[in-house]
Amino acid sequence: MSEIFKSHLEKFIEINEEEFAGILPFFQIKKVRKKENLLVEGQICKSHYFVLKGCLRKFFINKKGIEQTTEFAIENWWITDNFAYERGLSTEFYIQAVENSEILIINRQSQEKLLIEYPKMERYFRFIYQRAYAASQLRIKYLYDLTKEEFYNHLCESQPEFVQRIPQYLVASFLGFTPEYLSEIRNKKRS
Amino acid sequence: MSEIFKSHLEKFIEINEEEFAGILPFFQIKKVRKKENLLVEGQICKSHYFVLKGCLRKFFINKKGIEQTTEFAIENWWITDNFAYERGLSTEFYIQAVENSEILIINRQSQEKLLIEYPKMERYFRFIYQRAYAASQLRIKYLYDLTKEEFYNHLCESQPEFVQRIPQYLVASFLGFTPEYLSEIRNKKRS
Repeated sequence: MSEIFKSHLEKFIEINEEEFAGILPFFQIKKVRKKENLLVEGQICKSHYFVLKGCLRKFFINKKGIEQTTEFAIENWWITDNFAYERGLSTEFYIQAVENSEILIINRQSQEKLLIEYPKMERYFRFIYQRAYAASQLRIKYLYDLTKEEFYNHLCESQPEFVQRIPQYLVASFLGFTPEYLSEIRNKKRS
Repeated sequence: MSEIFKSHLEKFIEINEEEFAGILPFFQIKKVRKKENLLVEGQICKSHYFVLKGCLRKFFINKKGIEQTTEFAIENWWITDNFAYERGLSTEFYIQAVENSEILIINRQSQEKLLIEYPKMERYFRFIYQRAYAASQLRIKYLYDLTKEEFYNHLCESQPEFVQRIPQYLVASFLGFTPEYLSEIRNKKRS
């Protein structure tokens, strides 16, 4: 499993066997079962999660008491409540496994230590945050610019495998509509 | 002016006079006048802007033909269309000066060269993107969770100086409502 992480790192930085052997102990490898929570609202957000296999999602409970999914992480993506993680604060989010998953976990102190001992990991995380930031800027534009139905159509075109893979009630939770309304839209698309 | 940038860098990394003298030539210093455009929809996004003094904003023209502001950058913040900047693509955004401003400009090739010649700048930009990403994740939560009026109230409480500083029609453009509706809300708050 750790080979997946090494291949991923090599997309961004050069890393030899010895360095990788030094880096790996900073992480804990964990298997999580579908629907298992890694983080719960009100907890201090201590960890940063990397998906080796499977899928995680981040959501909060909105004022109507409904789960609003704001983010998914599939293979080779990181996920956490970054604001709370960096500051050691309690979170307003949940992070939950969408599928049985295998993940790497690092905590803030270890991540900081890793960056100091292996400065090339600064370059790696710079790329990771840069890419994540660019994606979230696009997302903000879509939230302003597209209706929910347009955003769904955009997702189907840009990420067809993702839309197929994720249970439809979670796609609905991400888009901010009811599963019933999503069914309606899907039927409209088919007809 | 460049001393402002040095002080800013020192919040994140240690940097001596000699290093700073080597780093500064990667940037161009520019004065821009209020309402001057630095980037226009359709152009290749080649530059990354850092505000030394003043304020920039990023907006796009929405389907109704209205300017939708998605981001402001005041002193010590970076701004660009990151997705287009990293990939050398044309942008869907405008970047415009809100006030007479002094800025640093770097282009993608120079930024990459800077990171290679001065690896400690990897650490600096890692912090910058990390902070920006955390802020945009919060923003996404607000876009899902708060009504426009609630978001305005939140802004007034969390960033009172910012709300005072920015012209009200731009605060309205950021919130996605008309200046008239903003006036109504402001009057309601006062009464």
